[in-house]
Amino acid sequence: MGISFKVTSKCTKTRARTGRLQTPHGLIETPVFMPVGTQATVKTLDPLELKQIGAEIILSNTYHLYLRPGSELIEEAGGLHSFMNWPKPILTDSGGFQVFSLGALNKITEDGVRFQSHIDGSYHYLQPEDSIRVQNQLGADIIMVFDECAPYPCDYSYAKKAMERTHRWAKRSLQAHQRPDDQALFGIVQGAFYGDLRQESARFLGDLDLPGYGIGGLSVGEPKPIMYEMLEETIPEMPEDKPRYLMGVGSPDCLIEGVIRGVDMFDCVLPTRIARHGKAMTSLGPVIIKNARYAKDFNPLDQNCSCYTCQNYSRSYLRHLFKAKEVLGARLLSYHNLYFLIELMSNLRQAIKDNNVLSFKDKFFARYSANTSPVTD
Amino acid sequence: MGISFKVTSKCTKTRARTGRLQTPHGLIETPVFMPVGTQATVKTLDPLELKQIGAEIILSNTYHLYLRPGSELIEEAGGLHSFMNWPKPILTDSGGFQVFSLGALNKITEDGVRFQSHIDGSYHYLQPEDSIRVQNQLGADIIMVFDECAPYPCDYSYAKKAMERTHRWAKRSLQAHQRPDDQALFGIVQGAFYGDLRQESARFLGDLDLPGYGIGGLSVGEPKPIMYEMLEETIPEMPEDKPRYLMGVGSPDCLIEGVIRGVDMFDCVLPTRIARHGKAMTSLGPVIIKNARYAKDFNPLDQNCSCYTCQNYSRSYLRHLFKAKEVLGARLLSYHNLYFLIELMSNLRQAIKDNNVLSFKDKFFARYSANTSPVTD
Repeated sequence: MGISFKVTSKCTKTRARTGRLQTPHGLIETPVFMPVGTQATVKTLDPLELKQIGAEIILSNTYHLYLRPGSELIEEAGGLHSFMNWPKPILTDSGGFQVFSLGALNKITEDGVRFQSHIDGSYHYLQPEDSIRVQNQLGADIIMVFDECAPYPCDYSYAKKAMERTHRWAKRSLQAHQRPDDQALFGIVQGAFYGDLRQESARFLGDLDLPGYGIGGLSVGEPKPIMYEMLEETIPEMPEDKPRYLMGVGSPDCLIEGVIRGVDMFDCVLPTRIARHGKAMTSLGPVIIKNARYAKDFNPLDQNCSCYTCQNYSRSYLRHLFKAKEVLGARLLSYHNLYFLIELMSNLRQAIKDNNVLSFKDKFFARYSANTSPVTD
Repeated sequence: MGISFKVTSKCTKTRARTGRLQTPHGLIETPVFMPVGTQATVKTLDPLELKQIGAEIILSNTYHLYLRPGSELIEEAGGLHSFMNWPKPILTDSGGFQVFSLGALNKITEDGVRFQSHIDGSYHYLQPEDSIRVQNQLGADIIMVFDECAPYPCDYSYAKKAMERTHRWAKRSLQAHQRPDDQALFGIVQGAFYGDLRQESARFLGDLDLPGYGIGGLSVGEPKPIMYEMLEETIPEMPEDKPRYLMGVGSPDCLIEGVIRGVDMFDCVLPTRIARHGKAMTSLGPVIIKNARYAKDFNPLDQNCSCYTCQNYSRSYLRHLFKAKEVLGARLLSYHNLYFLIELMSNLRQAIKDNNVLSFKDKFFARYSANTSPVTD
């Protein structure tokens, strides 16, 4: 099945746990945050930097790579690892979420989704079998079933229909998978914001005995307490011995709350996207680097951070780079934000091993400040 | 005088020579190409990469830094080296060229130049004394006198007036210089495209016994043979024991022809600017990476290059990055183009030491192809 997963320690007061996820391209310590390289590159950074940052696995988007440069081309290049010069593990999503959120005029039927490219307006038709074929060509270590992601809010009957279709598509995805020995196919739990549907989905997919499971359809606009409630409804019904991946989540508070509720894997564009807009996550809370108050602030971005950016550059210089629209600014903040989240996960793993994840959370937020909204939206 | 310069070998068939230029921040082997970091950053790259590339000195622009973030701020940061985290030598220009080429509605009088900022339209008045004060604040190892750069074409009487003003401004710049012990002030030879004026300027400035000399007002639109002719007229009249810096020149052919005529230093935005537009300099001639022919070309950008880009990425991937508008593409091409020019200079130094610079030139162009125009414009 391409990977093996072993829970290595468990918190006695929460559902938090550490694990080791072995993949064809390397070992991953969980809980883990996966930087996103949408178009076969984590924006502004290169693979050497990602390794320095401590990234153990990255995510890339099937929808984008399918449209450009095309999965046949990447297969011909020797697969995505070779194409983008990243020798460590990769996870590709199924394209389902992007088809709904980026493709114009999409039309969903039982067979699949018809959509228009966001690049050139060309028409495409993607079925679960197509998504898996494309992901087999890309060659990531972990691939995802093609699913239907319901919006927030969403009425019960639509949520149930989308979940049931997701289940049928999961079976078709599994059936279509051609490389089960070197690519692990994860299912995706859906069910929108209804606990009973979430539980049904977790049990149904659990019975398929897939090597891991995503939790989809969250972080789509709902208040955070609702997301946390859904995790609490869902995770106890998911297999204990399989990795659990909360899709599209990446703010510091959501990572901590997710880990406490039993999540093992996360991905999100947040740290790199806000970095390109000059927003940094720091141990003392968010920093908007363009603010005039930093003009002559010769301190590092985060005095408690030992990343390359914080060891070598001042807030004043970073602000100058953003004011002057210099790419190096986005690079240095992207580097820092990813380092910040990856170090947070490393600290969380240690806290779980030490069985004090709740006090870690309290200390983190006491420093980070109550209001994290500027970097979590 | 901040620096010392020693000619270490001379070609017997041309004016080419090698030298060692000692500065407060390090030793530079000449002939040297200086990457340009206009706004206190070499666009898309960071200082670690510049060191890997082999850059020994970079140039930064006084005009840009004066307007943003301001030279007082940089002085407060500990100077430009500290501000931008570049511990090796830096040269700043005087801002004269930019005031004429970028500033709107500029007005030149004997005292100085009134101009409008290209950033916010604000009015500024820059005299030679201001330029030197700003450069003293920035703290580069080598600074330049404030000069008037005549356009091409330019009538004799205007060229003569601009040259004479440049001479008066050179004296005023020298007079204003407050840090002669740790910053070397270079003169700038002008005289437009008139051999007698160029010679007069070289002699006049030579008599001032400055630690080095720029050759300004070339590469401003004239045909290359005219530029070469001007070098031949000018350089024999310049001091033998001082470094000669041909300003704003950076195409491979001009570097080689300049070295042969006795130039020791060059700078240009060309390699990084064309890189951002997807143009690479390679040993086999220019490569326009977006061309469809490279879509499935899994070879390196330059099969004879040992830079990071060529050792790790294919033309196919680089093309994808440019098509997808990903910053990493501009980074990797900027890295390569600078590496290409810096390696060219290293090879030129060896050829001079081996006394075969002319045969080096022939071999280079036989491979590079006769038509280098796509990357020299």
